[in-house]
Amino acid sequence: MSGFARDRDPRTLRGVYDDAATRRRRIVQVDIDGSACARDDVLVAEAPLELRVNGRQLLVTMRTPGHDRELARGLLFAEGMLSAAHPFDQVREPDDLSCDERGNVLDIGGLVDADLPARGFPATAACGVCGKQSIADLALRAEPIRAALSVPAALVAELPERLRAAQAVFEQTGGLHAAGLFDVTGQLLAVREDIGRHNAVDKLIGWALAAERVPLARSILCVSSRIGFEIVQKAIVAGVPIVVAVSAPSSLAVDLAERFRVTLCGFARGRRFNIYSHASRVGAG
Amino acid sequence: MSGFARDRDPRTLRGVYDDAATRRRRIVQVDIDGSACARDDVLVAEAPLELRVNGRQLLVTMRTPGHDRELARGLLFAEGMLSAAHPFDQVREPDDLSCDERGNVLDIGGLVDADLPARGFPATAACGVCGKQSIADLALRAEPIRAALSVPAALVAELPERLRAAQAVFEQTGGLHAAGLFDVTGQLLAVREDIGRHNAVDKLIGWALAAERVPLARSILCVSSRIGFEIVQKAIVAGVPIVVAVSAPSSLAVDLAERFRVTLCGFARGRRFNIYSHASRVGAG
Repeated sequence: MSGFARDRDPRTLRGVYDDAATRRRRIVQVDIDGSACARDDVLVAEAPLELRVNGRQLLVTMRTPGHDRELARGLLFAEGMLSAAHPFDQVREPDDLSCDERGNVLDIGGLVDADLPARGFPATAACGVCGKQSIADLALRAEPIRAALSVPAALVAELPERLRAAQAVFEQTGGLHAAGLFDVTGQLLAVREDIGRHNAVDKLIGWALAAERVPLARSILCVSSRIGFEIVQKAIVAGVPIVVAVSAPSSLAVDLAERFRVTLCGFARGRRFNIYSHASRVGAG
Repeated sequence: MSGFARDRDPRTLRGVYDDAATRRRRIVQVDIDGSACARDDVLVAEAPLELRVNGRQLLVTMRTPGHDRELARGLLFAEGMLSAAHPFDQVREPDDLSCDERGNVLDIGGLVDADLPARGFPATAACGVCGKQSIADLALRAEPIRAALSVPAALVAELPERLRAAQAVFEQTGGLHAAGLFDVTGQLLAVREDIGRHNAVDKLIGWALAAERVPLARSILCVSSRIGFEIVQKAIVAGVPIVVAVSAPSSLAVDLAERFRVTLCGFARGRRFNIYSHASRVGAG
């Protein structure tokens, strides 16, 4: 990808995203030979989403607009505030929003205050203060993944390219992380994009919750990014046995994957990749 | 970079980071031809850092250990809880930490409760609920950048490579974002790395605060990543007139840069880059 403006019409987006996910801006292209020219470019949209619970503000997160209900559902589920069985049917946009707020606020009904963190979010909700404590906290509400599936190495190696091929907005903007769910034959089940890599995973898990596919015991999660503690945490809570990343994992991501029996693959580029934990789920194929 | 394990000794790190920034783990390298071999790899470390204010927990953030005081100072400064002039000399590790907590908790003294967000962090501290509101909030505590400097296009184009050359941990792990400050001749002033791109910028600005260089009116901030609202926000609060990113900006990043007179360059790769706002600070050279 050149990194230069692509002047495709946003209407050619393949139906996955509406125009809310992109914005047009006038930019200047510069070459060190001294040339410079102005033209329109398509940027990935970023805007804050406010989640309220029964009218009270719970959190504000920056995200790429689109699939907001999935994002809310996946995020609250990952943080342990919502069970997979929770009916997510009392979600609505409040009536009293200003013009600027419209499209950027969701009120989640049907949760009780006891489900919510006492003192803000995500500062206190995400983790304790050391790796061991974080892992211990998660152990209280998640089980190690027992799924005994096995997938060929060649299939794992292909997933990043399949994910990239399914990205609608990235091609226009170069500015998005993607997360995709695949079945054990490598068939894409769903893909979500966001400027935040955690958001992309939350949207995907929100989709899976709505489709009643959680726990995702026969699925592979593939992400376009580096992989830290929080993405593995989300995979564990959703029951995903295999996580594949295009780039590097952190130490804590590997520790968590080891403890909860997730097969964590990284640097999946072309023919080769690394397996950081529970390699037995990847076969010669 | 191959993405495969590099078995260099961590002791060869160039003095910027100590061993706290990396961890060794046993991994399996797989090729789709069926070969697989186990070996040691070096991963980027990730661990939570808890910040307390006068003994009370303020926030927990995941970060790569190292330069924690700079991270704390830069983060609190960016969020408007700490002025540039605030003496940051009452920062200490609490005495009563468990073994696991040691190295992962800092208590910031000398702040009063009135400086702190009422209800958690960063949910309410970072932004309002729409782009316009976020920008309006920032306008209350930051000024548009008036610096009239001009830098050659060829210099802007070179910064990402200079940043990469200065990264110590990335070469080992492939898992880190970098942020660097350069002067107007392209001389590197400081570089910081972290698994979180916001953290890398916070560490860098914390360094500048300690060096009494804020506002950074004659500096260029270069980041290895995509660039969203929050990174531009941090640059504005620190007074940085030019921001250069290797990858794409978001719509809100561009809106904010436009409003606060920051020159925002993106997709700086090789000979070419894009300018998204206030192009007049980049000259033919």
